[in-house]
This record gives sequence, C-alpha cells and structure tokens, in this order.
Amino acid sequence: MSKLNLFLLLFLLSFSLLAAQPVDGNPPNRQNGHESQTGNHSLLLAQSEPLSNRSVERDHDTFTSTRGGVEIVSSDGEFFAIIGGRLLLDAAYYDEDKNSLGNGTEIRSARLDMEGRLFADIIYELSVDFADGDADMKDAWFAYDAQHPWRFILGHFKEPFSLEELTSRKHLTFMERALPNALVPGRNMGLGLQWYGEQLSLAAGIFGDDFNDDSDDEGDEGWGVSTRATYAPIATERSVVHFGVSAAHRKLDDEEAYRVDIRPESHLTDVRYLDTGKIKQSRTLTMVGLETAWVYGETSIQAEWMASNLERDDDTDVEFSGWYVQASWFPTGESRHYKHQPARFGRVKPLSEQGAVELALRYSTLDLTDQDVEGGNSDQITVGVNWYYKPQLRFMLNYSLVKNDEFADADGDLENEDEPKIVQLRAQVDF
Amino acid sequence: MSKLNLFLLLFLLSFSLLAAQPVDGNPPNRQNGHESQTGNHSLLLAQSEPLSNRSVERDHDTFTSTRGGVEIVSSDGEFFAIIGGRLLLDAAYYDEDKNSLGNGTEIRSARLDMEGRLFADIIYELSVDFADGDADMKDAWFAYDAQHPWRFILGHFKEPFSLEELTSRKHLTFMERALPNALVPGRNMGLGLQWYGEQLSLAAGIFGDDFNDDSDDEGDEGWGVSTRATYAPIATERSVVHFGVSAAHRKLDDEEAYRVDIRPESHLTDVRYLDTGKIKQSRTLTMVGLETAWVYGETSIQAEWMASNLERDDDTDVEFSGWYVQASWFPTGESRHYKHQPARFGRVKPLSEQGAVELALRYSTLDLTDQDVEGGNSDQITVGVNWYYKPQLRFMLNYSLVKNDEFADADGDLENEDEPKIVQLRAQVDF
Amino acid sequence: MSKLNLFLLLFLLSFSLLAAQPVDGNPPNRQNGHESQTGNHSLLLAQSEPLSNRSVERDHDTFTSTRGGVEIVSSDGEFFAIIGGRLLLDAAYYDEDKNSLGNGTEIRSARLDMEGRLFADIIYELSVDFADGDADMKDAWFAYDAQHPWRFILGHFKEPFSLEELTSRKHLTFMERALPNALVPGRNMGLGLQWYGEQLSLAAGIFGDDFNDDSDDEGDEGWGVSTRATYAPIATERSVVHFGVSAAHRKLDDEEAYRVDIRPESHLTDVRYLDTGKIKQSRTLTMVGLETAWVYGETSIQAEWMASNLERDDDTDVEFSGWYVQASWFPTGESRHYKHQPARFGRVKPLSEQGAVELALRYSTLDLTDQDVEGGNSDQITVGVNWYYKPQLRFMLNYSLVKNDEFADADGDLENEDEPKIVQLRAQVDF
Repeated sequence: MSKLNLFLLLFLLSFSLLAAQPVDGNPPNRQNGHESQTGNHSLLLAQSEPLSNRSVERDHDTFTSTRGGVEIVSSDGEFFAIIGGRLLLDAAYYDEDKNSLGNGTEIRSARLDMEGRLFADIIYELSVDFADGDADMKDAWFAYDAQHPWRFILGHFKEPFSLEELTSRKHLTFMERALPNALVPGRNMGLGLQWYGEQLSLAAGIFGDDFNDDSDDEGDEGWGVSTRATYAPIATERSVVHFGVSAAHRKLDDEEAYRVDIRPESHLTDVRYLDTGKIKQSRTLTMVGLETAWVYGETSIQAEWMASNLERDDDTDVEFSGWYVQASWFPTGESRHYKHQPARFGRVKPLSEQGAVELALRYSTLDLTDQDVEGGNSDQITVGVNWYYKPQLRFMLNYSLVKNDEFADADGDLENEDEPKIVQLRAQVDF
Repeated sequence: MSKLNLFLLLFLLSFSLLAAQPVDGNPPNRQNGHESQTGNHSLLLAQSEPLSNRSVERDHDTFTSTRGGVEIVSSDGEFFAIIGGRLLLDAAYYDEDKNSLGNGTEIRSARLDMEGRLFADIIYELSVDFADGDADMKDAWFAYDAQHPWRFILGHFKEPFSLEELTSRKHLTFMERALPNALVPGRNMGLGLQWYGEQLSLAAGIFGDDFNDDSDDEGDEGWGVSTRATYAPIATERSVVHFGVSAAHRKLDDEEAYRVDIRPESHLTDVRYLDTGKIKQSRTLTMVGLETAWVYGETSIQAEWMASNLERDDDTDVEFSGWYVQASWFPTGESRHYKHQPARFGRVKPLSEQGAVELALRYSTLDLTDQDVEGGNSDQITVGVNWYYKPQLRFMLNYSLVKNDEFADADGDLENEDEPKIVQLRAQVDF
Repeated sequence: MSKLNLFLLLFLLSFSLLAAQPVDGNPPNRQNGHESQTGNHSLLLAQSEPLSNRSVERDHDTFTSTRGGVEIVSSDGEFFAIIGGRLLLDAAYYDEDKNSLGNGTEIRSARLDMEGRLFADIIYELSVDFADGDADMKDAWFAYDAQHPWRFILGHFKEPFSLEELTSRKHLTFMERALPNALVPGRNMGLGLQWYGEQLSLAAGIFGDDFNDDSDDEGDEGWGVSTRATYAPIATERSVVHFGVSAAHRKLDDEEAYRVDIRPESHLTDVRYLDTGKIKQSRTLTMVGLETAWVYGETSIQAEWMASNLERDDDTDVEFSGWYVQASWFPTGESRHYKHQPARFGRVKPLSEQGAVELALRYSTLDLTDQDVEGGNSDQITVGVNWYYKPQLRFMLNYSLVKNDEFADADGDLENEDEPKIVQLRAQVDF
C-alpha cells in the first residue's frame, strides 16, 4: 500500500473517530447548560431559500460586540462569528554595502479574517491576505472542538513546528521571523490533532502540499508529518518557563526538487542572499527543532535551534541548520503574554495610557552550505524598539547588522560577503 | 441595427420597466406593514460623511443572528445583510491506468459571501472565491424584487440552464457536477428576468461574456440568450416530481474560437481527457437541455440530457451531447430538499444527532467527437457516500470508474483509452 | 543625507508627534463623556486566546444597524465597525470610426470595504476591489483622529490632488473621470496630515510608490509630496462656491521611466489613444492643479485645470496639461451634495419616491504632446443622464464624442485621428 493510500486511510479513520465522539463533551465555549442544538438556530437553516424569501430571523438571543471588527454570539454560546482584520505598513532603508536592496515602503499584511463556531462542536477560520495585490489564502480550516482538550483540525493551517513560526506575526517581538525559520514547513493542507494540557501540549498532523501546489504539474504531491511537544512547568501571567521540541518528515513531490531561500530579516527587499538553488533528486526531508522561552516579569528570553536533513537519490545527505536567541525588556513594566494552551506568545496589553515600550535584541544565524550545495551562511544582529500604543496598535523600529559569507550570493546572482545595515519601521493595527 | 444595439435597447427598456413599477407591491420579505421607507434608515445615509464624522447610528430596531456567520435585519424587514462563507477541502487518490493524474489535496472552494436587501425593493449578492490563490468573482449582482413573483436581476450570475448547474455546489449529491455539464453556459454578465409560481418557473436572460473576458483583445464580446422553464406538479417536503427544459443561443465573440474541455468528475487533477481543442471559425452556439427529478421519501432520481450545436463559417455544424442519471437514498430517513421557487435542490437537514447518511450512484457520459472534431467520449460511474453531520457540515466519499475512448486524449497530449479509478474525499462547512 | 533618510526621519517624527498628543482631545465621534477606555472592551481583548477559548463577550452596550451592510457601534462611541461594499455594472457600445474598440459588458467595480474605530482615537479602512478577477487593494490605512480638526493618516490612500480624483467613483457625475485626471498621482503608500476647517481645508502628505511597486526590481522606490488647499466661502446645503489648488512633486524611482496613457472616458475598451510611451531618463515630476465648483440649487458647475512638468536627465523638460468643465442640473430638484470637511462631493439623495434625475454635460481635453514626446491630444464631449432611484442605487447613461489628433495613436499601435462615439450604461449599488 502506498503512502498516499495510507494517507487516505488516516483521513477516513479520523472522520470516523470524529463521528464516534459523543457530542455531550462540554465544549469549552458553552456558556450554559443548553442541551438543545436545534433551538432557534434551526429556524435559521431555513435560509437556504431563494434570497427573495430569505430574511434574518428575529432572534433576540444574540449579543454583539466590537473591538473595531464585528462580533456576534448566540446566547447559548453555541454559535458565534467574528470578522476582523489587520494592517501592517512597512518602510525600510538599506544602508547598502555591495548590492542594491531597494529602499521603499510596502503593505506587509492586509488581511481580512472570518472565524466562528457552529452547533457548539465546530469552529472554523477563513483568512485572506491582500498585501501583495492578489488574494493569498492563509488559515482556512475547520475543527471538531467538542472533546476538550482534544481538537481535530482539517484544512490549510500551520504545521506544528517552532514557537516563532506558530506565534502570529501580530505578536512577534521583531518585524520578521529569525533566519532559521526559513527551514520550517509553514502552512500546508492537512489533518491535525492537538492536545493542550496545563503544562504539556502536543500537536501532530499529516500534511499534503500547499493548497494550490498542484497547478503546474501532474505528478503526485508530496506529503509529510509534523509534531510538536511543549512543556511549560511555569506559565503564570508574568512568569514563564517553556521548552519545546518539533520534528517533521516530508516526502517531496514527484519533481524531487528542493530549495531554501530567504531574505535578510527584512521583507521589503527582494534580495535573498541565502539560496540553495534547486537541489535536484531530493527525496525526503527530515527536520528537528528545539525551543525555549523564559519570561521573568518585564524580561524575556527566547531561543530556538533547528536543522533539516535532505536525503537525495544518490544517498549524499545535505544538512542545513540555524539558531537564534533573543531577549526583550519592557521598561514600562509589561510582560510578554504566554498562552499556555496553544503554547505560543500573544498580545501585549499596555499598562498605562502612554502605552508600553519594549526593547529587544536578537542574534540569528543560518547555514545553507553543505556538501555540493553552496547556499551560504548569514549572521544577523537586530536591535528593536516596540511601542504598543494600544493593545491593537503598535509601532516597531528594527535596526540590523547583516554579515554574509562568501557563498551568500543569492545562488550566484549577487556579490558575496555583503554586509548591509537595515533600518525598518512598521505601523500595525488589528481589529 | 446590430445585435449589440439591440442589447443596449433591451438594457434600457428593462431599466424603464424597473422604474415604472409601483413600489407598493408587498415584497415577500416585508415583515410588517411599515409604509415609511425613510424611517431610521434615512439617518444612516448621512454616513457618506468623512469617516471622522461617521458613526453607526444607535438603532435599536435591528435584530442580529448567527449561524456561524453574521446576520442583521432591520425591524421593518426592509434592510438586511448576511455575511457568510464556505470551505470545501478535498483529497484525491487516482488509481492510474495509462496517464499520471497527480494525487494530492486541495482547497476546492473558500468563499466569502455578502448579500442583503436595501429599501425593501433591492437585493444584492457579492461572492468571491479564494480557493486557487487569487480572487475569483462568483455571484455579483443586484435585483429588483418588489413585484413578486417577478424579479429583474442584473450582474454576474448563472445563466438559467440545467438543474445540476443551478444547484449550489454546497448541495450537490456528488463532489463534482456530471460530465455533460461541461456544455452549460455557467456564469456570465447579464440581465435576467425570473418568474416563480407554485408549480411553474420561468427564467430568461440576455448575457454578454464573462465579466473579464475583454481583457486580451479589442474585438466585440459575444452575447447570448438563455431560458429555462420548469414544471413541478408535485413539490411537497418529501415528494417531488420535477420536469424542466432549457435552451440557449450564443453569438461567439470576434475571435470565433470555441473550445470545450473537462476533467473527469474530479477537480484535483488538471488532466482534461475530453478536449475539442480550439474550434476555429465558430459563429454561433445553440444548446438545449432536458431535466427531471423525482423524490419519493428517502429515495430520489435525477437525470439530465443536454446537447449543443456549433455553427461554423463553412456551415459544417458540429454537435456534442451527453446525459447522466443518478439515484440517491437516505438510510437515515431524510429527503433531498427541493426548493420549488428557484426550482433546484437545497440543504439537507439531518433528522438525528448522529447526522444523515446518503448513498448515491451516478452514470454520466459525454461525447465531444463529431465531424472533424475529435474531442473524445467518456463514461463515468460514481458511487457516493455522504455524511451530513450537521446541516452546515458534511463529508463526502466518491469512488469512480472512468472509461475513455480513443479520442479522449486531451487533444493529443495524453494516451487515449485511459481507464483510471478515482477515490475522492471532501470535508465541507458553510457558515 | 539622502531624501529617503529624510523620509524615514519624517516618518519617525510623525510617530513621536502622534505619541505626544494627549488623548483627551474629544474626538468628534464620542457620543458621550465616557472617560474610561478600558471598560467592557478590555474584556474583549482577552480574545487573543486560542479559538477554542474564545467567545464573543456578552456586551449589551453595542448598537447595530444596516443600510444593506453591517454596522455595529459601542455605546460609548469609542469603537465601531462597518462592513459594506459596492457593485458597478457597465455596458458599452462603441460607434467606431477607424479603430476597433470592443463592445461588451464588464464589472467596473466590485468592492468589499471594512472600516471602523478603535479606542476612540484610531480609525481605519481596508477596501479591496475584485472587479478584474484578482484582488486590487484600494484604501488600506489607519489614522490618528483624536486632535480634531487635525488627522494623521498612514497607509495606502489617495494623494491629496484634484477634486475629481478625491470624489468617490460612487458619487461622480459621469461614469469616468475626465481625461486630464490621467495626470494625477492617485493612491500611493504614504503619511498624510489633514486639517479641515469651516471654509478652509489643507491636506499634505509624503508618499512612496504604490504598495507593490517594488516587486520587479531592486532599485529604490520613488517618492513624492502632495498638497491640496481648498477654500469654500459658501458651503450650505444647496449653495456652494469652492476653490482649490493642488501641487505635487515626485522623484521617480531608479528606473527613471515615466509614462502616461489613458483610455477615452470609457473603461470597457482597452484602447488608450493617448500614450506617451516610456519616457526614459526621467528624473522628477512636478504637478499643479486648479479646481473650482459652484452649486446653485439644482444647478452645478465644476472645472479643473492641471499640468505636469517632467524633468529629464538632459534638462529638456516635457510639459503635459489638460482641463475640463462640466455642468449638471437636477430637473427633480435635488442638489449636488458638497461635503465641506473633506472638500469633495458626496451622495445625492432623491427627494421623491420616483428618484432623482440629473442631466449633465462635460467638455474635457488633454494634450500629451510636447518636445519629442508625441503622446497625442484628445477632446471629448459627454452628455450624461443619471437616475438616482434610491440614495444607494443609480443608473447612468453617457454619450460621448471623441476627437483625437494625429498623435493620438496609442504610441503607434492604432490609426490616428480616430473619432468614435461612445454609448455607455452603468447600474450601481452600494451597501
């Protein structure tokens, strides 16, 4: 039986498991003991009528709210919907050394997001980013959420790998993720299983390729599995000790080409110093990651190491690895907010009317040179100042020193050993 | 006078008709006798102020609701808005015979939808699908809806042709529409007139090309007319007898090229066995379709036949035709839900907490070979199992046998007489 | 110090200014004296929890409303959200002279729009147009709005230049803007400062390139400044006297190529008679514009003149200029609605159930020929009839005579001295 047959089998199996779950498992959001799932909502389902006959039911039993977006919840908590979005505006100035990087401005992210809950058990999210002038699908999944603390999730979402990757861009300490995050799998189509306890969290999934990767060829898609386990012996409001380990294995698609390339930690330029080029005859990829984070009041430290091993047809494996360590401090007294259920960081809320200020420092390094692959090595030091004017509004200033080695030449397109400095600004709002 | 002048004249005429309608015709959605159309809503129109001066009026006379999306209605029923969407997630495994089809996963549909009513008379819908990584406009129309049972509709919407085509993908019995539906016109820019009675329904329209077909050349767009008439002598909740006939005629655009190609009834692969190639010097296209559907309790039968005749400059007509027949049975006791006003099928609502199960079987065939055009012939048998876990959530499993003839070679790109088997899965939610 | 350093400095400076503003400045939208910004909304911010733990707070202190879209406001007026959109449907018939223009239909605009207010001080807008089959970002900005009548605005928005440009397409008198508006800067990424008084308005901004212009090269983006000042000694509901002047200066990006091309005042065709081609070695662009508008009851007059001067490396400047004048009359008694705060025109509200009718006439001319640049000259006379059936619904009919000179040949692609006539129809709804 091929691995894809296995994949389908797992798919089916999970569906059956989903079916077998009794529905009285008290999902976390139910706000009262309403048993009936066919109360006033069943009326609403009559709405698959022609639009001329449709109308919104007069349902007094909903509550609405706004944080700048639209929120609506049924009184029994079994249905809700939230429509929101975000806007991230960047400017970058490159103090160039050897290569031209292209100063300018851009919309880093302009996203509309819709999420909600249906029939108590089912949650969904649909999120689209319009920042680069087309529609870039981000989260698009739904999940069975009635067997707390278990959750089945199906769709297009992030593979469970790396604290930095799983933390929303809205809540990252620096403007861009660290260099080694070029190695992580990111969002793919898949089926996941999550378990979140008080101190432990486990997440695993089986994933196909990205949702539209099949558009250009008729070979089979690749597929992979990812897992992440975290342990947080301390996770109070102002004090966190967090450890995590991720592992992933992926069968590449029938094209058998693998490539890693990454910009310096600045998105506005299109220059990607580190670039392995297309590595042919690549069969499988194995990745591991280690992560830790410490929060002690206003101070926090976070570090990750990750490595990937690429197996090729001629059995000459290639290995890439990188790591980063960062520290941050809030002179205004706030703490980084750790969410121990999904085991990642969340929103910082300023304590005063003047907002919160955060100072941060990061060192990151990634080495994409191994065997015959000369992808290059890059080190980057970044100093950051963040000002959280409101919980949903912040400004970021990043200053970076970049150091590229002799192979960091964008796969031959640029001069090597480039050492530019980068100044970047971001204004960010979410609603 | 050219046909396009005629088109414009009709356009204008309809507008005037629209104007001539008195507005006291009791649109179906008015929920009480409120005469005033300028009540608290007129206040809201002051909102074309600069945003700094805008604010939402404090209007207690609205009701909100949620089925996982957002719904809001004014107390007099003259205004409402619904924001919702859908997510369809597919996986397919191809048991290949001669050609590679490409196993994998995809987002089949990820749609945001906004619809509503203005000033009692006007309804609209705006619907965009993001599944393939850009923004694919679907329904984008508004209609004059004050003269029940008449409706004028203007915009981008489905031409009235074929029961299977007009039934929403959310409510189809199988994952994909049957092969002969490759012939139907689908969505175009147009002006339509609809009349829905108790047993009879009539719909007609005049249509230009698809909304952005004019992007690549400066020749005139094509245009066409479509009509559909249905008769349902029985249309109760669990018992339906439905007949329908559709006809359409289209003047092709100035490029005079016509092409039909279609995948086997599976969207994930990009292989289109049946492919006529570009048929040059094509002037006009005439299509007819016959449809019937029977529902008797848990059992239903549905069948359609359709054919198209392509007239070419050298008067050698080409004819294509196909048909399908399908049966379905709900062991759990539900019925397919026929909506006799728009004359198509709608949402199935499970009777029990365990959901509804539907077993289905379809045979479909399409022949695109005629005269010098060797588009191929394909037969397909599909067995389907659907599990409706909730009214808005279902899982589908389809198993198909495909039989291609010697001309079904993707216009020469593939080996002919391919006979693959297909296993497909879908998970679907709408909100 | 380079100009981009200057840009960044201004950027930072404005942020600090923003920070320095005390927040008790009574923003115009606060509907009562609620001082607390951390009332029930702070609860909502707990929503950056995992979705499984999220739910909409039961907040009775919001009010909802609908004009066909969704509107929600917090009781203290400090938060609100509006989700709406628009749909513009066009048909055009070209009575051709020498060149083919391509009759047909199109969706001119299909837009979803989300806007709102956060924490009393911050307003935002996110607007995406899907009319051409992808996602075209329009307004995407947020602003600090607590220091009335000042406003800081940051993001992707229209440079302050030209009355016709700043008036929303929804409220234009004719279907398309006049020919000379080909010269105006339009939307770009920038930082703006606005001040709106009783009679005077001032707006200025510093702008980078359009939000995704950096995608194809690594040269530095261009940047520019724009300002507009208006004076309206009379601005009552039915009587307006308005004068304005705009000026802009722009450093072109590192490609140093500049091009102006424009369709006749009809969007459906892709023919752009006036086309300068790529003007190489272009360094900077300086633009000026003069505008005036008079409203006297049912009658209005509006006129603008604008010119641009392009400086080239060889110091041979090129100058383009154009102007238009238009008059409109409402036989049904309405007035054009002038909004003296943002100094542009807004929504017309019909006085009777039968709607409003507007007759309009415009002459416009643009000359893109100067020195060695032979972009052509075009004159256009347009007669328009608008029928505002409801405040949010109108139909437009435009008839135009076009007169092109010997250089108006689409940069050599078409026959010159073409003199077509154009009939265009539009149906428009917004919600």
